[in-house]
Amino acid sequence: MEETIPKKLNDEGSAGIVETLYFTFAEPPEELVLSNGSKLGPVTIAYETYGALNHDKSNAILVFHALSGDAHAAGYNSPEDKKPGWWDIMIGPGKPFDTDKYFVICSNIIGGCKGSTGPSSINPATGKPYGLSFPIISIKDMIIPQKKLLDYLGIKTLFCITGGSVGGMLVLQWLVSYPDLSEGAMIIATSPNHTAQAIAFNSVGRYAIIKDPNWNNGDYYEGEKPDKGLSIARMIGHITYLSEESMRRKFGRKVIDGKLSLTDIADFTKEFEVENYLQYQGESFIKRFDANSYLYITKAIDDFDITEGFENLCDALKEIKAKCFVMSFTSDWLYPKEQSMKIVKALKINGIETTYTNFESPYGHDAFLIDDARLKRLFAGFLKSIKERI
Amino acid sequence: MEETIPKKLNDEGSAGIVETLYFTFAEPPEELVLSNGSKLGPVTIAYETYGALNHDKSNAILVFHALSGDAHAAGYNSPEDKKPGWWDIMIGPGKPFDTDKYFVICSNIIGGCKGSTGPSSINPATGKPYGLSFPIISIKDMIIPQKKLLDYLGIKTLFCITGGSVGGMLVLQWLVSYPDLSEGAMIIATSPNHTAQAIAFNSVGRYAIIKDPNWNNGDYYEGEKPDKGLSIARMIGHITYLSEESMRRKFGRKVIDGKLSLTDIADFTKEFEVENYLQYQGESFIKRFDANSYLYITKAIDDFDITEGFENLCDALKEIKAKCFVMSFTSDWLYPKEQSMKIVKALKINGIETTYTNFESPYGHDAFLIDDARLKRLFAGFLKSIKERI
Repeated sequence: MEETIPKKLNDEGSAGIVETLYFTFAEPPEELVLSNGSKLGPVTIAYETYGALNHDKSNAILVFHALSGDAHAAGYNSPEDKKPGWWDIMIGPGKPFDTDKYFVICSNIIGGCKGSTGPSSINPATGKPYGLSFPIISIKDMIIPQKKLLDYLGIKTLFCITGGSVGGMLVLQWLVSYPDLSEGAMIIATSPNHTAQAIAFNSVGRYAIIKDPNWNNGDYYEGEKPDKGLSIARMIGHITYLSEESMRRKFGRKVIDGKLSLTDIADFTKEFEVENYLQYQGESFIKRFDANSYLYITKAIDDFDITEGFENLCDALKEIKAKCFVMSFTSDWLYPKEQSMKIVKALKINGIETTYTNFESPYGHDAFLIDDARLKRLFAGFLKSIKERI
Repeated sequence: MEETIPKKLNDEGSAGIVETLYFTFAEPPEELVLSNGSKLGPVTIAYETYGALNHDKSNAILVFHALSGDAHAAGYNSPEDKKPGWWDIMIGPGKPFDTDKYFVICSNIIGGCKGSTGPSSINPATGKPYGLSFPIISIKDMIIPQKKLLDYLGIKTLFCITGGSVGGMLVLQWLVSYPDLSEGAMIIATSPNHTAQAIAFNSVGRYAIIKDPNWNNGDYYEGEKPDKGLSIARMIGHITYLSEESMRRKFGRKVIDGKLSLTDIADFTKEFEVENYLQYQGESFIKRFDANSYLYITKAIDDFDITEGFENLCDALKEIKAKCFVMSFTSDWLYPKEQSMKIVKALKINGIETTYTNFESPYGHDAFLIDDARLKRLFAGFLKSIKERI
């Protein structure tokens, strides 16, 4: 669900310098009508593109990011800011999403805080940040601005759509909302809907935020932020993104240098390396993410159910025209393989061309963000199979 | 780890009315020297007993409780307070720990807040609650007062020791500290030490407590308590005590009556039944548990490593004279079967008579608290096998 795996920038194969662009629609008197009937406008989305759109506009790949991701999926934003995009390992010249061949687009979801309209954006009606006056949004709502962006770019059909975790939910939703607008679809490390356990982890995180006295009913933009609550939410999330095995390999019971377990009573959370790691994740997250965005997006994730409005999963997926690639990871316990297999079964019953891999990896849910040659070959191979098909 | 499974009091088979008793030692000028060298005194422990000690004092069973448990393991405390003990399903006339045959003892661990000396007890040096002046305690320290209690009761050898979760760690520690003081030992749903993932869950809970502004460095006994932090810690813990399957069966994606997911923006944590359940667990816990006790006890659990001071697990367990019964639960993902199997392997290598069961149950870590006829038969069967042995 996360983009926190440290990445090295490798100029060879890099998408190079990319500019984050902004696209605005639903400007007054227009408004975007959301799935619960509430309205939002104007709506801006931040996006980046890599590679060039070909003459007949048939080589576009739309990438959906995960919970805390953003539009910056590859390359870097300036010579001064060489931070590579969150999927830089996958997007660039010669990489699976080969920017010598494909035109790759990634945009920040609405509700977010990375350039797209969200609860921290200014509400034009008040001149102040929306806070809780921001409407409740759904995964279904999040793909509409992305479709508007494609219209704006003049792209009628996508070559492929792809995304892991929440990004995979967005892929599923796109396939259901626009079943014939993509030749291929990669549904990675995701689920048709959250289990009670997955809801539980998200909900305790939200509880930590709303119980932080600084949350102040979402109205904290001029004062202290609910940093403690948000960092707790992030720490809980992080445990679920890693596998028991990867935590064991990485940290085990290793003690922070110089700490003596039984005599250091000054703090109850600073003995083991895994504690240090989680606190670092929590404390760095609060610098880059908005607590209200965390509430709105995780709520949209928990509410997501691709079968909603249909008789069952099979019925929900029946109109899909894309060739599908479904991937789970052996050590992902947040979205275990059974959930991907449900999707595969429903696709197959509908006669939809589908490839499924339960990818052997110790890295848990975050495995799709790991630089792994086998993973890259599978991604590239699937894209090749779409090319041969069309 | 928990005693939250609702229980019905059944007077038939009940241990009846039991009084909680108190035993004090290490009174001035004596002090209990803890494993890190710090001192504590006087030390009081709350305990209860069920059944009668036989003439040669050979029928005593010592029961160790889990994280949030207490001395009240069976029966009820008064006709007005008919709350059954946390293992009432197992202890009573005709039950596996049959009080017609055995003398069953359970005492609250030190560091706790249920009658035994802990951080909320009065520090005789200041006349105020210890708070953080309470010394850091270990699992090893927690069994010493229980040994003193046995000395006081005149019991030289135990018929059996038993406990699940942290109680199982206490059983292991007892076996290592006093390898020849029990005929039998039941090591249930536990681990030789915490994995990084288990430490992580506990640590985020502690982080939530110490970041609660009301925690005030542990000095909150005269003001507002860190209830928010403690309830978050409890909610996180609860997720780990249940299995994915039991949560799915019990809650699935069921929505609280009358809630509409996409329009209720007043709260981000009150849509799904599982959210309600967790909040109820958190909010009831703060009424019965002390936040500092939670810090001290979970720290002792994370620090626990039965191999400490030994070459390996095999070396640690080599002196054990008890017949051992090890049990894991198929759906326990907090202490999965591999951890029990390590213990079994080490016992077997040492030639120690050992029975192992990976018990089929959907109830996760808390399964040892579930009223299950198969479980009871296994417990009773093991006790019978000790009887035949001696």
